[in-house]
Amino acid sequence: MKQLIKIGPIFTDLYELTMAQCYFAENINDEAAFSLFVRGYPENRSYYVCAGLEEALFEILDYTFSDQDLSYLEKTGLFTVDFLNHLNRFRFTGTIRAMPEGSLFFADEPVMEVSAPIIESQLLETFLINIVGFSSLIATKAARCVYAAGGRNVVDFSLRRDQGVDAGLKAARSSYIAGFAATSNVMAGKLYDIPVSGTMAHSFVSIYENEYDAFKAYSKNYPTKTVLLIDTHDTIEGAQNAAKIGIEMKKRGESLVGVRLDSGDMAVLSREVREILDDAGLEKTEIFASSGFDEYKIAHVIGQNAAIDAFGVGTKLGVSADAPFLDMVYKLVHFGNRNITKKSPGKAYLAGEKQVFRKTGPNGKYTGDIIGIKEESIEKATPLLETVVKNGNIVIEPPGIEAVRAYFAENFARLPDACKDIDSPAPYPVSVSHNLLNIQKHHV
Amino acid sequence: MKQLIKIGPIFTDLYELTMAQCYFAENINDEAAFSLFVRGYPENRSYYVCAGLEEALFEILDYTFSDQDLSYLEKTGLFTVDFLNHLNRFRFTGTIRAMPEGSLFFADEPVMEVSAPIIESQLLETFLINIVGFSSLIATKAARCVYAAGGRNVVDFSLRRDQGVDAGLKAARSSYIAGFAATSNVMAGKLYDIPVSGTMAHSFVSIYENEYDAFKAYSKNYPTKTVLLIDTHDTIEGAQNAAKIGIEMKKRGESLVGVRLDSGDMAVLSREVREILDDAGLEKTEIFASSGFDEYKIAHVIGQNAAIDAFGVGTKLGVSADAPFLDMVYKLVHFGNRNITKKSPGKAYLAGEKQVFRKTGPNGKYTGDIIGIKEESIEKATPLLETVVKNGNIVIEPPGIEAVRAYFAENFARLPDACKDIDSPAPYPVSVSHNLLNIQKHHV
Repeated sequence: MKQLIKIGPIFTDLYELTMAQCYFAENINDEAAFSLFVRGYPENRSYYVCAGLEEALFEILDYTFSDQDLSYLEKTGLFTVDFLNHLNRFRFTGTIRAMPEGSLFFADEPVMEVSAPIIESQLLETFLINIVGFSSLIATKAARCVYAAGGRNVVDFSLRRDQGVDAGLKAARSSYIAGFAATSNVMAGKLYDIPVSGTMAHSFVSIYENEYDAFKAYSKNYPTKTVLLIDTHDTIEGAQNAAKIGIEMKKRGESLVGVRLDSGDMAVLSREVREILDDAGLEKTEIFASSGFDEYKIAHVIGQNAAIDAFGVGTKLGVSADAPFLDMVYKLVHFGNRNITKKSPGKAYLAGEKQVFRKTGPNGKYTGDIIGIKEESIEKATPLLETVVKNGNIVIEPPGIEAVRAYFAENFARLPDACKDIDSPAPYPVSVSHNLLNIQKHHV
Repeated sequence: MKQLIKIGPIFTDLYELTMAQCYFAENINDEAAFSLFVRGYPENRSYYVCAGLEEALFEILDYTFSDQDLSYLEKTGLFTVDFLNHLNRFRFTGTIRAMPEGSLFFADEPVMEVSAPIIESQLLETFLINIVGFSSLIATKAARCVYAAGGRNVVDFSLRRDQGVDAGLKAARSSYIAGFAATSNVMAGKLYDIPVSGTMAHSFVSIYENEYDAFKAYSKNYPTKTVLLIDTHDTIEGAQNAAKIGIEMKKRGESLVGVRLDSGDMAVLSREVREILDDAGLEKTEIFASSGFDEYKIAHVIGQNAAIDAFGVGTKLGVSADAPFLDMVYKLVHFGNRNITKKSPGKAYLAGEKQVFRKTGPNGKYTGDIIGIKEESIEKATPLLETVVKNGNIVIEPPGIEAVRAYFAENFARLPDACKDIDSPAPYPVSVSHNLLNIQKHHV
């Protein structure tokens, strides 16, 4: 399990700790189960892609308060010596059931359930929503981009516009899980062992007296990896200069990998550039496009018959611009011997520990999910939540990013195409089992 | 200067390094100046708040490639031994001019200019846009929330929905600079020494047999810090239970700090709750409100005469939901002895190293800015970019977060009120000096 930093348990909202102290003082530490799920969908969504589990486990399995943390908490004046001593001994001893990373999940379905003495299970709330919520948000956005690209490569160019350092890393990891081909983010490449790729910036072209010289210098240094950015001065002239370079490279037994368009009318320009390259015998030189792409713009230019082979997707992927957050929540569903929900307007949820069951039709496509109670089994349906941590110990090791990526691809292939539409996706059928409905009547 | 992690120079787009290697191989390392600025405004914005400088300097002043970084770069197969040796000796030796953190800035104005041999100055691009862009995005959003709240306290509750760990920290820091009273984020409190605050979660109320018992337990443990969440079952009954607790606390010589509303019609409920509290003699007990707040919802409920004393602002602040990114760019403006821009459609910018001058009217309000050339001085206008790093060494130490917060408050008070409107702000006048216009004609 790889992560840039060890975060630790004070990466949390203050109230998680003040409530915990209250439980501690009142001698309340019954087993409490929480469900992690998303309420509803942002516009144009009807599925989610689960990501972030590996990183979450990495944290939770080694959840300890440092001396520095404890002395900071002491300084706030909010905590007793007894409670700080309790935190000093703190570790997570509970059970975590989760869908594997790369799973598809749907509104109201728990993607994870945590069961532990309440001080432990409550404390994970802020951190789990942050980690799993954001990773899943980006994996979902990325899946939409890959789907829109219809087999063309998509590369993560988001780093500069991501919301901070960690977001940059998670955007790269989550988009790779969802089928992106590579990332421009060197640190993510190193940390997660995912392919890195890049082209050149306008500044590179600008510092040379003319564009041809810039292209020539670059291609000399990268005989097998050159992608030329051709819009600094004029895209058509840029394509002509690139064609000259491509011909020269060919003569040297090298080959020009591609050119990149970064402005203007992408559909029109890409066809014109394709013709220039083809006329120069550079049929294998690919056309990359960047600048404001997301699933909508990808679909739009493909609909206009753009001659684009691959897309660099930046800002709008990295912040999930059309839906920059998920309404992910972590709700108490069972405490001691009671199932629990609440009645606040618009905030009710399903009481009780749960399992999610998925049905598959004869053609291999998913036909619908049933949210049931943890203990039941439903005929011809596969339970999705699996126990990954038991008594505080890991029982299923994270499978690694390539396996997660393959698992997602397999899952996504089984999702009905109508649910994948980027503009008006069909709802995916999710129902609630009789057993789960039954216990809703009896909760306190 | 405080930061959770040392990021290091491979937190960058691959092309920054491949271009650098090309410059290195071609013996190109002339002085290059880059401007960091934002193109245009998202909807409803007409100013920006500058943040992130301290963290950026913390990184840049100690920018070195670790052995691990270098061996990763070697493994990519893209880099020569000579260039990797060069990176091994890399440090930043250039000059950085920047507006102080907490400054107001406007579209097209450089908030920072970096001048250094091109390998060094180019390499900072990705990192600077990420750090300064996101911090400024949130500081700007936070300033809007504080303005809408009209003197009422606003607290950062965003951590769980922020885009990753680093975003959680930066959201807390940036919103505090822009006038937030506190954050729920314990780690940010520790790291940046900013006030932390919190209330309780619905789960706390749910685990007790009844709400009154939950409130009683909490207030017993926090005689001077209790804020009761009153909407788990029914807000009005919750207020009545809170009033009982408040009366009991009063009898013990304690006081109930507040109650929190988290659902329902905030304006109506807050007035009803105010009446219940006042009737119980709890005039000093404050009403906090949370749930989906941002500047628009704050203004809306205040417009409906809500009896709310303070706002918890979460998700929509932490991701700047209505405008989740800035079009911040880092553009080459000078290289060797040439001023530089580019002509790509929609992507032209002002060539040349610059200074931003701000004019103040007789009433102390800002009347407009002039973007000029670095060397000029403009009568009765204050230059804003100051040299913070020279020859790779810091020459102005970051002043600390309290000073930055005070500086912002002073600045914001001078911004014309019409520019602060959250729905249809007046544009702030920014012009370009004759000197700067003149050099635009001569760039290559």
